[in-house]
Amino acid sequence: MTAAPLVPHEPARAAEPGQATSLPTLSQLNTASAADFMARLATVWEHAPWVAQACVAQRPFDSVDALHRAMLGHVRSLPEPELLALLAGHPDLAGAAARSGHMAPDSVAEQSALSLDQLDADDAARWDHLNTAYRARFGFPFILCVKRHSRISALRCFEARLQNDRSSELQAALDEITRITRLRLADRIANHGLSGLSGRLSTHVLDVSRGRPAAGLHLSLHECPRADGPADERPLARAVTDAQGQTPAPLIDGVPLRIGRYELRFRIGDYYRDLGQVSSDWPFLDVVPVAFGIDEPEADYHVPLTITPWAFSTYRGQ
Amino acid sequence: MTAAPLVPHEPARAAEPGQATSLPTLSQLNTASAADFMARLATVWEHAPWVAQACVAQRPFDSVDALHRAMLGHVRSLPEPELLALLAGHPDLAGAAARSGHMAPDSVAEQSALSLDQLDADDAARWDHLNTAYRARFGFPFILCVKRHSRISALRCFEARLQNDRSSELQAALDEITRITRLRLADRIANHGLSGLSGRLSTHVLDVSRGRPAAGLHLSLHECPRADGPADERPLARAVTDAQGQTPAPLIDGVPLRIGRYELRFRIGDYYRDLGQVSSDWPFLDVVPVAFGIDEPEADYHVPLTITPWAFSTYRGQ
Amino acid sequence: MTAAPLVPHEPARAAEPGQATSLPTLSQLNTASAADFMARLATVWEHAPWVAQACVAQRPFDSVDALHRAMLGHVRSLPEPELLALLAGHPDLAGAAARSGHMAPDSVAEQSALSLDQLDADDAARWDHLNTAYRARFGFPFILCVKRHSRISALRCFEARLQNDRSSELQAALDEITRITRLRLADRIANHGLSGLSGRLSTHVLDVSRGRPAAGLHLSLHECPRADGPADERPLARAVTDAQGQTPAPLIDGVPLRIGRYELRFRIGDYYRDLGQVSSDWPFLDVVPVAFGIDEPEADYHVPLTITPWAFSTYRGQ
Amino acid sequence: MTAAPLVPHEPARAAEPGQATSLPTLSQLNTASAADFMARLATVWEHAPWVAQACVAQRPFDSVDALHRAMLGHVRSLPEPELLALLAGHPDLAGAAARSGHMAPDSVAEQSALSLDQLDADDAARWDHLNTAYRARFGFPFILCVKRHSRISALRCFEARLQNDRSSELQAALDEITRITRLRLADRIANHGLSGLSGRLSTHVLDVSRGRPAAGLHLSLHECPRADGPADERPLARAVTDAQGQTPAPLIDGVPLRIGRYELRFRIGDYYRDLGQVSSDWPFLDVVPVAFGIDEPEADYHVPLTITPWAFSTYRGQ
Repeated sequence: MTAAPLVPHEPARAAEPGQATSLPTLSQLNTASAADFMARLATVWEHAPWVAQACVAQRPFDSVDALHRAMLGHVRSLPEPELLALLAGHPDLAGAAARSGHMAPDSVAEQSALSLDQLDADDAARWDHLNTAYRARFGFPFILCVKRHSRISALRCFEARLQNDRSSELQAALDEITRITRLRLADRIANHGLSGLSGRLSTHVLDVSRGRPAAGLHLSLHECPRADGPADERPLARAVTDAQGQTPAPLIDGVPLRIGRYELRFRIGDYYRDLGQVSSDWPFLDVVPVAFGIDEPEADYHVPLTITPWAFSTYRGQ
Repeated sequence: MTAAPLVPHEPARAAEPGQATSLPTLSQLNTASAADFMARLATVWEHAPWVAQACVAQRPFDSVDALHRAMLGHVRSLPEPELLALLAGHPDLAGAAARSGHMAPDSVAEQSALSLDQLDADDAARWDHLNTAYRARFGFPFILCVKRHSRISALRCFEARLQNDRSSELQAALDEITRITRLRLADRIANHGLSGLSGRLSTHVLDVSRGRPAAGLHLSLHECPRADGPADERPLARAVTDAQGQTPAPLIDGVPLRIGRYELRFRIGDYYRDLGQVSSDWPFLDVVPVAFGIDEPEADYHVPLTITPWAFSTYRGQ
Repeated sequence: MTAAPLVPHEPARAAEPGQATSLPTLSQLNTASAADFMARLATVWEHAPWVAQACVAQRPFDSVDALHRAMLGHVRSLPEPELLALLAGHPDLAGAAARSGHMAPDSVAEQSALSLDQLDADDAARWDHLNTAYRARFGFPFILCVKRHSRISALRCFEARLQNDRSSELQAALDEITRITRLRLADRIANHGLSGLSGRLSTHVLDVSRGRPAAGLHLSLHECPRADGPADERPLARAVTDAQGQTPAPLIDGVPLRIGRYELRFRIGDYYRDLGQVSSDWPFLDVVPVAFGIDEPEADYHVPLTITPWAFSTYRGQ
Repeated sequence: MTAAPLVPHEPARAAEPGQATSLPTLSQLNTASAADFMARLATVWEHAPWVAQACVAQRPFDSVDALHRAMLGHVRSLPEPELLALLAGHPDLAGAAARSGHMAPDSVAEQSALSLDQLDADDAARWDHLNTAYRARFGFPFILCVKRHSRISALRCFEARLQNDRSSELQAALDEITRITRLRLADRIANHGLSGLSGRLSTHVLDVSRGRPAAGLHLSLHECPRADGPADERPLARAVTDAQGQTPAPLIDGVPLRIGRYELRFRIGDYYRDLGQVSSDWPFLDVVPVAFGIDEPEADYHVPLTITPWAFSTYRGQ
């Protein structure tokens, strides 16, 4: 039995829209012409190429972290009216800009991963209502690093943040922009060396009726679109365990884990049927769902399973 | 926190259609007039009142089991043509009789519990096809004790039995009628003393992060309408655990367990939120589904759960 | 395979030394002559028959609890010098009185269960030292309800209480005497109705490789004489699990559980060898020890075990 | 909290008695003088330097495996009388030679690891009896690769093999010599590349009450000198878990695991006391023993533990 190819949780880190696929290193950027530097980094800050521009003369940078800190320094030193103008450059989440095509290419890619561009009329109205209420209350758009969120967690977060006071929200907006721009730098610079950007989800199946790894067991990972409802039938990933009871690769790796609710489904019935340990049409354990939440996008989640034909056990491991 | 009333898996054993609710005891039936005896038992064998009639003169019976054995003796001694006529008296499952209202009241009640009278056009066509194929192959209708089945297991069983040879199916039909008629006797006689008619499903939740029963934990039981799909959102039963971590009553009791696939959902996130052990919007464990199959309708299924905020474990216990 | 008879943790509640085995009920004591009342209850309070005497005229009592409260009332209203005299009537634990035979019969029976009368010279010296130090510090002997203690927990408790201040120790001594005298009343009165006097220890073994109770599994219960050392090889109890995976009776019942450390040993290797699931001379699991502490003498301790030939799991259940 | 240094299960692979510590590589042996080759390898076969001698002219060898196969070829082609002479060159286990100092240095080192040279009079008599009976029955001494055995498993194996027929024992003796000589080659040649010579024992502790590895937990590994008795109080190894819940190194590695019975002791009470989750003097879980058998000396044994203050679970993992 061989492993099915792992369906990635999302496309491998894509090349920038409209750019060549080969990324420059930091040392190349340090010595590049101002024009080349800007060609690569102008869009890191949404509709604010001046942030990259202000860094040109500060080169060289020791690390991508140092470059990011320099960018952040320019932003933080802005007087409030100009800071608000910078925030205002961000598109509404699932807003009219997204639906009409007037959004920066990075934001297009980021929002589309949550299908925020494909809402039905009711949901679109709900987002529009939130966007309107938020702008009315705070005077700038709701900003969220959507790569760390599922659609439902983005929505919950939006509703919660709408209750904050203005100064908390100003800080929250800057925190989210910090995350967004760090991820964008990581997408634009080879060997970026930035840490704390991505999480990992993995599993491991032990057959404790036989004292060995469960090899050849099929499993799939699903997202739960609602906080308290069934998982999406389309899997985010599929895999078959190897001789060590592990999947050939983590189920999610190299990207932030989207905050939300997930379900792993382990085909235990088929596994024991193949071994001749189970024959019933309705075995006690067949497709075993393990539902769990993720709220630390940059953490390791290891969700191992120990099984017999009649029992299973799971925990958050590491 | 108090337990919500347990929603029963199916209506409490109903009185016979058209009869008074008070059931006679065996000793009353032993001494009743032939007419009263027949009024109670004529319909135990579908469209075959002669089976009860043949037992009138054999009274008294020591036990309901003895009465049933006497009935069965009359049926088994039939020459094959008359046996086939008796089988032919049974309605098709989900067949035209069910849909046109020409079915014995017991069969109506039994089939309706699976909603076999409410199939959509596609499913009705599938059942019609199976009924037609089965009659064509064996010369008698497909007979199944539907009280032991969910709709999906009835369908699977139908498809499997269609592959048998005629002599196996004749035996299978008699076995099912034996089950059907024992259950019908149990429905008509007070203190019937018949055993092996019903199963039980129960659960028990231990909080092993605190070394004590998990009290006040909400849970629900759901049926999975397909062999490999999500559970029905409407619960078969709801309960809240008591101080011993148990539900006030078994989740199913006093009836056969319907063969099929089920899901228990334990609201672990709420439980630990109430205790202050969990605060995240997306706790690792929130609503925890435990999916399991049942293939022994008359057995005890105990499905205990041990929990912490980060781990759970389950097994078929007893 | 049948269960070996359960070896009791301690002799069944013995008749009073020097008394007939048939105990009077409270209503018999309520109407008995003063002499008969005293014959039964004079020794409940060590060397203080006046406590029972003071209750004679207060009869009738509604409950044994009411009788005990009356006794306690007399003791609590004593001026301190007389209270100290009453405390002084108690023997040293493992002291010279125990070793020379000058101790009230109840105390003899209670101390001998911990073999405090059979210490070797070193241990005797250690107890003598503690007794001397305690009397020197507080002016009365160390009082402990030894039925709730193992030898090691009694010793630890002694060392800890020696650090208390005098007023705490006076209270502690009264608390212990309250426990001692309640247990003595329970030993002298039939159907006493006192609650909270005893605990229970039980186990249950589930074979999760087969989804059923582990029947016919041999196990034994051992006390650990030291806090951090091996268990005593002589078992307190032996049992064989029945068809439900339980022992025919709780391992300890009807008496306080002695505070301390215990070990259950489950002969899992033999169990799976009998089933043909294990053949090695050195199976992964053979005799499986489960060590646990008890610090609530009046509580239920349920220590279930789930097993496969390659895994086991246990928890404090109920 | 830092890890105590790991006490090795046995001395690091020692230099040959009387030799320099730096081992030659195979390619050095391939080109060495015959005298140097013999100086290194003459004693691989007990009292049979001719085996190495016969290989001198066959050089060069591609691998240590090839060298071993060549040696084995010479032995297997011996006529039976000479083969028996070679077997006869092996010392009795725990025999007179061991006790009188007439044993080859390798055998001295191997037997002393089981303390077979330090038996008390009763045990020595038992081994002498077995050695005498074995020689009388088969005409050659009992040969066992003692590096794969604990004293008790060696004894059990001896008693079992005494029941075999002569031809099985001749084969068994050759199999054991094959193991012994492969291990001796591995001790004499740098970068030997031989596989299947050693096993590994490791553990891992997860705190499932907190959803993270149990760091700073003290544990020790003990051997059980009898098949059904307590573990030896002196540990084979001690360790403290690191931030990943693992020990800094496997508990045993790089040598065969000795067949027998072991006990891991996990100081769970101290771990939770340090965290403030447990305060009782007699916590439910304090020092938790996990006893297990090893019968595959060259296998990986991973014995993980999941814990809460009230529950634990273990299994043979990998």
